[in-house]
Amino acid sequence: MNSARGSAIGLHRVLEPHGVLPQAALRLDARPALYADEVRVRVQRLNLDAASFRQLWTEHGGDGDAVRSAVLAIVATRGKMQNPVTGSGGMLVGVVEEVGPGSPLGLSVGDQVATLVSLTLTPLWIADGLAGWDGRSEQVPCDGHAILFGRSIAAVLPADLPAPLALAVMDVCGAPALTARVVGGRAPGASVAVIGGAGKSGSLALAAARRAGAARTVGVVPTDREAAALTGAGICDEVVIADARDPVALAAAVGTPVDVTVVCVDVPGCEHGAILATKDGGTVVFFSMATSFAAAALGAEGLAADVTMLVGNGYVPGHAAATLDLLRAEPGVRRLFEDRLAAQ
Amino acid sequence: MNSARGSAIGLHRVLEPHGVLPQAALRLDARPALYADEVRVRVQRLNLDAASFRQLWTEHGGDGDAVRSAVLAIVATRGKMQNPVTGSGGMLVGVVEEVGPGSPLGLSVGDQVATLVSLTLTPLWIADGLAGWDGRSEQVPCDGHAILFGRSIAAVLPADLPAPLALAVMDVCGAPALTARVVGGRAPGASVAVIGGAGKSGSLALAAARRAGAARTVGVVPTDREAAALTGAGICDEVVIADARDPVALAAAVGTPVDVTVVCVDVPGCEHGAILATKDGGTVVFFSMATSFAAAALGAEGLAADVTMLVGNGYVPGHAAATLDLLRAEPGVRRLFEDRLAAQ
Repeated sequence: MNSARGSAIGLHRVLEPHGVLPQAALRLDARPALYADEVRVRVQRLNLDAASFRQLWTEHGGDGDAVRSAVLAIVATRGKMQNPVTGSGGMLVGVVEEVGPGSPLGLSVGDQVATLVSLTLTPLWIADGLAGWDGRSEQVPCDGHAILFGRSIAAVLPADLPAPLALAVMDVCGAPALTARVVGGRAPGASVAVIGGAGKSGSLALAAARRAGAARTVGVVPTDREAAALTGAGICDEVVIADARDPVALAAAVGTPVDVTVVCVDVPGCEHGAILATKDGGTVVFFSMATSFAAAALGAEGLAADVTMLVGNGYVPGHAAATLDLLRAEPGVRRLFEDRLAAQ
Repeated sequence: MNSARGSAIGLHRVLEPHGVLPQAALRLDARPALYADEVRVRVQRLNLDAASFRQLWTEHGGDGDAVRSAVLAIVATRGKMQNPVTGSGGMLVGVVEEVGPGSPLGLSVGDQVATLVSLTLTPLWIADGLAGWDGRSEQVPCDGHAILFGRSIAAVLPADLPAPLALAVMDVCGAPALTARVVGGRAPGASVAVIGGAGKSGSLALAAARRAGAARTVGVVPTDREAAALTGAGICDEVVIADARDPVALAAAVGTPVDVTVVCVDVPGCEHGAILATKDGGTVVFFSMATSFAAAALGAEGLAADVTMLVGNGYVPGHAAATLDLLRAEPGVRRLFEDRLAAQ
């Protein structure tokens, strides 16, 4: 234990380059000894960001062993799990192993927690070579340790939900929380389209939009299979099939332009379709890490579209608790999550 | 003249790949014959996007002839001026040469206009090999033609301002217009920081923020020279010097976190500093094409920052007229623009 406090945002753990924030760092110090305001978590499971896993999976041609080796190499080199191509990370679940006397997080040794800050800025060390993971899924059994700073966010896992389910929900809890805020900030009866409505963040966003007062909710999915699943979940008014990368087709599928469009699919090229599907004066919320800033900015200008475009911020105060409540209240959403977990 | 109407958003001019919007196209059809709702403009001058010009300038080691050849090759290959690395374009000024009978733009042959949609989606053909340009400035004298679609935006140049000045102003008129909207939407007396406050969009954003009711305006600049210029312009309350790529230094320079931060510098890596400089509940507006979506989204999450982050939309209704009025009313801003033009 170091008796000194660390920087609340983790500057003291940055090894290279000097003076940058942990997320921007090439390399973090993941040594287990704590500063006075830090917490060390014994890691049980990593949940890789979908865009990151997809990139690794594609790069290594679906070879699970190669994907596992790539993740191990990244963490060994960088002291954190940040995919150098996508820039994204994920989250983790584990058990609190030691709490510095100056930690403001309110955690106790033995608490099972999920980190709600990204793996891209969390010092991480892997002890078991990921021996329990076949490299074929985003959910990674893992033994090792991670460090939380003074201003990190970690939620104690609820006793009434299985850990993998709670983890999957909390990983995307920013999307429904921000969707609820945006829809709730408009006049009652807004129309909302969610691109990728059958996915994790998408299904939660649809349910959140309806609870926030949306009068028309449209879930856009790419395949018949996802359409059937989303229809079965009963969480939106309309389910339509379209390739979100085709702006003209996407706008046609949504029909009358909506007040709010939420982009929840992790494929590039959805910006223009989302803009075209949104009415003037409306809002587009981009939650996909595959979003291109330039494509969004230039697309709206090129289409002479007066839409407000939001970068989906993964942090909204109270987002974890609110989203777990949403899952408990919406059996259709819960079923989508459970089916997804069962298929892994 | 083709008697058929084109697609209002230009789909009929896309050669490759089929069915995408013009901005996403690899190649556009820039032939001069018009569809019934199109307008052909005789080009006089291109104004390259700053990020695009900087990339070309750096790639070719400051060799103006090589930069000119690169621009010619891009336009010849793509039928538009879209930098394949940055994805960005710019705008143009010219004289209306022919107006299709079905054009809704309200233009007449002989009008001198600036296009307010990006060059990234404007069919363009260059006739003079850019013989009048030394490749060393963003402002490119040019003879050629460009095509406007039904939903394009073009503004007739004002009679009371020199064309290069009006062009430079209209190129960035989205920034002050959106800044005014965001600041005007908050309680009176907001505090506003503009990163890159001495630049084109930055100086206009500072002036717009003050007119929209901001009580404290902070211009952040990288050098003593820019600080002196901005101080001399008299358009903000505080001028501070900081490297915007250094989050910790930037936040320290701004001091008390502000309600609204506007990012107007075309260098990568400013996302985290802008977030750190903004108070909880505040808004960050990203106007730089060098903005990384992932860095912004993950940065806010990692810093547990409850800030609204906007993708700067270059189109706000009435933005050109409002910004020209701002320039006429603010001699300090006009002087910054004129000094910049004189130095080119």
